[in-house]
Amino acid sequence: MLSQTLSIMGTVEYFEILLPLALILLCAKLFSLLGKKIGLPQVVGMLVAGILLGLIKLIPNQSIFTEDTLKGLSFLAKIGVILIMFSAGIETDLKQFKVCGFPALVITILGVVVPMGLGFIIATAFNGGFENIEQNAISNLFYGTILAATSVSITVATLKELGKLNSKVGTSIIAAAIMDDIIGVILLSLFISLDKGTGAGEVGIVIGKMIGFFAAAAAIGVGLHFLLNLIEKRYPHTRRLPILGFVICFFFAYAAEKWFGVADITGAYVAGIILSTVKEHEYIDRKVEISNYMIFAPVFFANIGITADFSGITATMAGFGLAFIAVGLIGKVLGCGVGSLMCKYSFKDSLRVGIGMMVRAEVVIVCTQKGIDNGLVDPAIMPFILLLVVISALVAPLALKLLYKGEKPDEPQILPPIEAESAPQTDPQPSET
Amino acid sequence: MLSQTLSIMGTVEYFEILLPLALILLCAKLFSLLGKKIGLPQVVGMLVAGILLGLIKLIPNQSIFTEDTLKGLSFLAKIGVILIMFSAGIETDLKQFKVCGFPALVITILGVVVPMGLGFIIATAFNGGFENIEQNAISNLFYGTILAATSVSITVATLKELGKLNSKVGTSIIAAAIMDDIIGVILLSLFISLDKGTGAGEVGIVIGKMIGFFAAAAAIGVGLHFLLNLIEKRYPHTRRLPILGFVICFFFAYAAEKWFGVADITGAYVAGIILSTVKEHEYIDRKVEISNYMIFAPVFFANIGITADFSGITATMAGFGLAFIAVGLIGKVLGCGVGSLMCKYSFKDSLRVGIGMMVRAEVVIVCTQKGIDNGLVDPAIMPFILLLVVISALVAPLALKLLYKGEKPDEPQILPPIEAESAPQTDPQPSET
Repeated sequence: MLSQTLSIMGTVEYFEILLPLALILLCAKLFSLLGKKIGLPQVVGMLVAGILLGLIKLIPNQSIFTEDTLKGLSFLAKIGVILIMFSAGIETDLKQFKVCGFPALVITILGVVVPMGLGFIIATAFNGGFENIEQNAISNLFYGTILAATSVSITVATLKELGKLNSKVGTSIIAAAIMDDIIGVILLSLFISLDKGTGAGEVGIVIGKMIGFFAAAAAIGVGLHFLLNLIEKRYPHTRRLPILGFVICFFFAYAAEKWFGVADITGAYVAGIILSTVKEHEYIDRKVEISNYMIFAPVFFANIGITADFSGITATMAGFGLAFIAVGLIGKVLGCGVGSLMCKYSFKDSLRVGIGMMVRAEVVIVCTQKGIDNGLVDPAIMPFILLLVVISALVAPLALKLLYKGEKPDEPQILPPIEAESAPQTDPQPSET
Repeated sequence: MLSQTLSIMGTVEYFEILLPLALILLCAKLFSLLGKKIGLPQVVGMLVAGILLGLIKLIPNQSIFTEDTLKGLSFLAKIGVILIMFSAGIETDLKQFKVCGFPALVITILGVVVPMGLGFIIATAFNGGFENIEQNAISNLFYGTILAATSVSITVATLKELGKLNSKVGTSIIAAAIMDDIIGVILLSLFISLDKGTGAGEVGIVIGKMIGFFAAAAAIGVGLHFLLNLIEKRYPHTRRLPILGFVICFFFAYAAEKWFGVADITGAYVAGIILSTVKEHEYIDRKVEISNYMIFAPVFFANIGITADFSGITATMAGFGLAFIAVGLIGKVLGCGVGSLMCKYSFKDSLRVGIGMMVRAEVVIVCTQKGIDNGLVDPAIMPFILLLVVISALVAPLALKLLYKGEKPDEPQILPPIEAESAPQTDPQPSET
């Protein structure tokens, strides 16, 4: 036991993560500033920094992105994406969420059905053909399901930067993204279970667990609401409140993923919503944002670029892969856009919702990997999934920024990524000198 | 290449780190608050939290502290210890450092010679005996060297909490700790080289590299001083300054360890000293402290407890191990204490210096591991080294707190670990509601 622990400590040189970290922070900052000059959102700068840093991986025997440092960065990136969603949750205005509940439902349903259907059709065309449509049906449905889930972290960051997170578009996207994540995860579990032939009983358990998660979260949330307000009242402005917030966030994210089969970022978001009902939520959010945007969030965005790898592209998969990307992008814009139009959103707002919902990130990668692990998906699709992630992550913030050009922010832009020009703060303690 | 990256992503469940993180933050906070009630320094609370959480590892098939989550935590802990030393560097008053230069030198020399000599005697007694003193001389000298290096992170955190970091005692300890780290690392490299029989040429290279590091750091430091003041003048109070500080810190720590054979924490401390010369150093330090004490630092302290493992203790090693621990603790108190007395420090201050220098942490573990890797040290000593770490980390803060009882802090206590009761800050942006 001891020697095992020590051999881990001995073989991994933990300091090796410091150089990639320094490079990521420096390049993310530089490219964010450069991007800002030409009107690009800062997340794009961080992603581009990551893609460029990812080129280092092509150098043989480089010691910057080793298996261990990549693992370390992925842990930091995981904390980053959790904190991004937690912060988005804290900033959610529950009243607005209620208002756009029905449109969000319509947007979600069409936003799931359209890309999933298109993905199924494309997959069937390349994988068995329509004459044998039943043969690979579950596999092809799984391909469709991959396109169902959305990762709105980038959209959320962009909308926050634009000061539009609490607009009708912002809350619709967040509400729809929560629901399509749930639908995506349900369908994912469903098809994996169906493929294993365990039958309808498992499906009930999967759905039951999800209902269980939200029921438990609501019950615990009410208790935490009173506990946190009590702590806040007795010890205002102490660090124990944000730290307790972190604990709740990490625990909810873990519990969701581990015990309920719900995505961890959804758990973190739900934890954020609970914290949003606490009086001091702005103070908590500020501490979370400082912690996150100094290290974790830049690592998350850069890591998307760094882990993108296009060397596995083969000619056989190219046609399918490119068609799959196109369908993945168009499907969401079309599905969510039409859904928005049906709910009487303006054309411009419908387009905004569609483009905001287009973004995929870790969830689509995780879904694909789960499909590969279960033998439902060809591993060769992965480079195209990464391409879908990069394209959507690069296109969506840019398109959203263009679509919001000339509009004033609805709400104050709370600490936009990295570049907040915060006003001088009063010094909490007298100066040392 | 792609499939390799993906298999890493597939096999490691990164969300698994969220539960240990939640537990660490919660327990560290709880035990810090409990400890505070009975007058214990908060670092002790965090260490105890870690030791208790470490008991989870004894449960068979537990999924909290797996090999991967322990790796993830170690990466966070590494960033934590780097940022602790960086922050200590930023808070260093270079003028005071100059004032106590000579006493620090005397304290360092005696603080290295005494424990090293005692360690060598004990090792010789148990390992070959005095009649064959030459036989295992290098191995036994290496045992002595293990006791030379100090890890003052815990002492620094305690002194910061007491508001005594910039006192004569505080600066002497920091100055002596920097030097004994250097001496320790030089001797370590020296004995490894001597054992390999590569002769005196290597020794020259090792020493030359160290001189090279400090020369390069001084030259780069002067350039950075002007660059940072320029940035600060043009863009006051923006996040780019602390982020650039992080970049410099991580880069210096990496470069020191990787290219110059100097400990990474020394590199981080040197980076901090460079930043301490910038006008906005208090603003940078505040941002570093918030980022660090929300996640990284609690993980560092708890991780010391979690990785402590006493199951490898055997009867044969017990006598040597316990004697080695005693010599390790007494040697530093004696050596540094006598050194301080020689420099006309009061008896109380001398005792404070000796106890402050007594603390060992990762450096002693790393040194031991390097000895094990090179066949110079028996792996069975490691549990006792961990015991030395735990005892010194538990005893020193407590003893220091007792020795400072009733004294008022010299300087404002800048954001003491976790429990800063920061005054309400003016909101940088207008409120959302």
